[in-house]
Amino acid sequence: MLIECVPNVSEGRRLEVVAAMAEAIRGVPGVRLLDLSSDPSHNRSVFTLAGDPIGVERAVLALFERATAGIDLRAHKGEHPRLGAVDVVPFIPIEGATMADCVTLAKKVGAEVAARFGIPVYLYEEASSNPARKNLEDIRRGEFEGLAAKIASPDWSPDFGPKAPHPTAGASVIGARMPLIAYNINLATDRLDVAKKIAAAIRQSSGGFRYVKAAGFMLQDRGIVQVSMNLTNYEKTPIFRVFETVKREAERYGVSILESEIVGLVPAAALNAAAEFYLQIASFKPDQILENNLRT
Amino acid sequence: MLIECVPNVSEGRRLEVVAAMAEAIRGVPGVRLLDLSSDPSHNRSVFTLAGDPIGVERAVLALFERATAGIDLRAHKGEHPRLGAVDVVPFIPIEGATMADCVTLAKKVGAEVAARFGIPVYLYEEASSNPARKNLEDIRRGEFEGLAAKIASPDWSPDFGPKAPHPTAGASVIGARMPLIAYNINLATDRLDVAKKIAAAIRQSSGGFRYVKAAGFMLQDRGIVQVSMNLTNYEKTPIFRVFETVKREAERYGVSILESEIVGLVPAAALNAAAEFYLQIASFKPDQILENNLRT
Repeated sequence: MLIECVPNVSEGRRLEVVAAMAEAIRGVPGVRLLDLSSDPSHNRSVFTLAGDPIGVERAVLALFERATAGIDLRAHKGEHPRLGAVDVVPFIPIEGATMADCVTLAKKVGAEVAARFGIPVYLYEEASSNPARKNLEDIRRGEFEGLAAKIASPDWSPDFGPKAPHPTAGASVIGARMPLIAYNINLATDRLDVAKKIAAAIRQSSGGFRYVKAAGFMLQDRGIVQVSMNLTNYEKTPIFRVFETVKREAERYGVSILESEIVGLVPAAALNAAAEFYLQIASFKPDQILENNLRT
Repeated sequence: MLIECVPNVSEGRRLEVVAAMAEAIRGVPGVRLLDLSSDPSHNRSVFTLAGDPIGVERAVLALFERATAGIDLRAHKGEHPRLGAVDVVPFIPIEGATMADCVTLAKKVGAEVAARFGIPVYLYEEASSNPARKNLEDIRRGEFEGLAAKIASPDWSPDFGPKAPHPTAGASVIGARMPLIAYNINLATDRLDVAKKIAAAIRQSSGGFRYVKAAGFMLQDRGIVQVSMNLTNYEKTPIFRVFETVKREAERYGVSILESEIVGLVPAAALNAAAEFYLQIASFKPDQILENNLRT
């Protein structure tokens, strides 16, 4: 069972502190640190790690230990909103793992973080059973500075831990979500209005697909426009359906798709679903992929 | 580097002999035995194994040792043509391995088999540099019983080993080829002539794609017809191109594709190529697939 985890930590300037956290993750067997990026202006670092549930749990706890010792939010400034030293911890099902597995893991880790470090924990996204507390932005509103007041209200009692902020580490938001796919479609036109109209047609916020966020942009150097998207659940809103809809909407304006691009990582299952759709493959099973027989 | 190997052995009835060979393969570190199927009427067993080049080499040599000790071709009868105890050994590039790597490995193993067991070895397919000796059927023609006469002719001097058959193990054919994909397309019609015409249009032997073998069949129980194919090089003749051609040819007869099916295993790259084609993904790299970052 393979689970991905993308902890966001409130430190992006003191790189020796970030390196010590990376070291702590790398020291855990059964886990690989796939990516680490630090943003000084956000004063924030994003770790991408993956492994079996036990390994990922241990790596996250090791990260909490280092972050709690090394970060004091009272002295932290940056452009990005944040509630805690370890600000957000999403668990993401990748292979042989279900969303239910990730929800279970999020709750287990949340309880442990509260018990071991005295940090209040909010569950979010799929791990939250309260609709008013699913959205990360809602939980984080008011930030570390407003937390003491917010946490005292009955609506914002944490899911685990004390009803008061940790003095230096604030609170943490832990949960489960699907992998996010950054997907862009470039149109063979310089008409920005077409890209903006298509983005509006496909994104949830204006009536489109539930798991699509989209905006239209001009790519100045190439003289073309782009529909830039985040696909937040490729199982329920698959890439091929978004692609076909963009293609059909573009036709309406006499515009063709020039190309599409996947930015960063994509789960194999998201690409396989496209192959199955277009090739009309009946009753395909993931274990028919040769490479899937080589992993235990 | 991941290489697949599919040795065909001339024993499909005495299952304790087959089991001993499987045991020998399983005992080699760095190798996994993915599949084993024995056919009593062919009196033949097919092993599918995969691993790094060193592991695969050791596993094949261990298989030769058991097969040479346990099989006497003078007493072997079966429907399938055969030249040797270990009849055919193809090496197949899967991941991070090129065809050149597999050709190198085939020659290395061929030389070792000749040296250690005194078995003459013919190189075939991509490992053969002689056009008259690329095709397995050409090399195997005359079978074990005709080998003593054939091997004495200058045209059929082996690539490695003695110019005479091994008394009980005959000769072996060792080489390199692309993975074979068994791919069927079912048509929404009961018109067998349409399936046969389309099969003729797409297969190499009658003017179609170079790496396609195809035939049209009736699926009696479902009342539909099928274009049944072997795709012998999915890089040069990709699945999506075959699918689109079958679809277009079927339209000519007013027939639609009902579904397609992949029988058995398919390399991930073959499916990814279809996703890239239909989604028009520009400059996609295999290391963008999340899972590919988890293997060393």
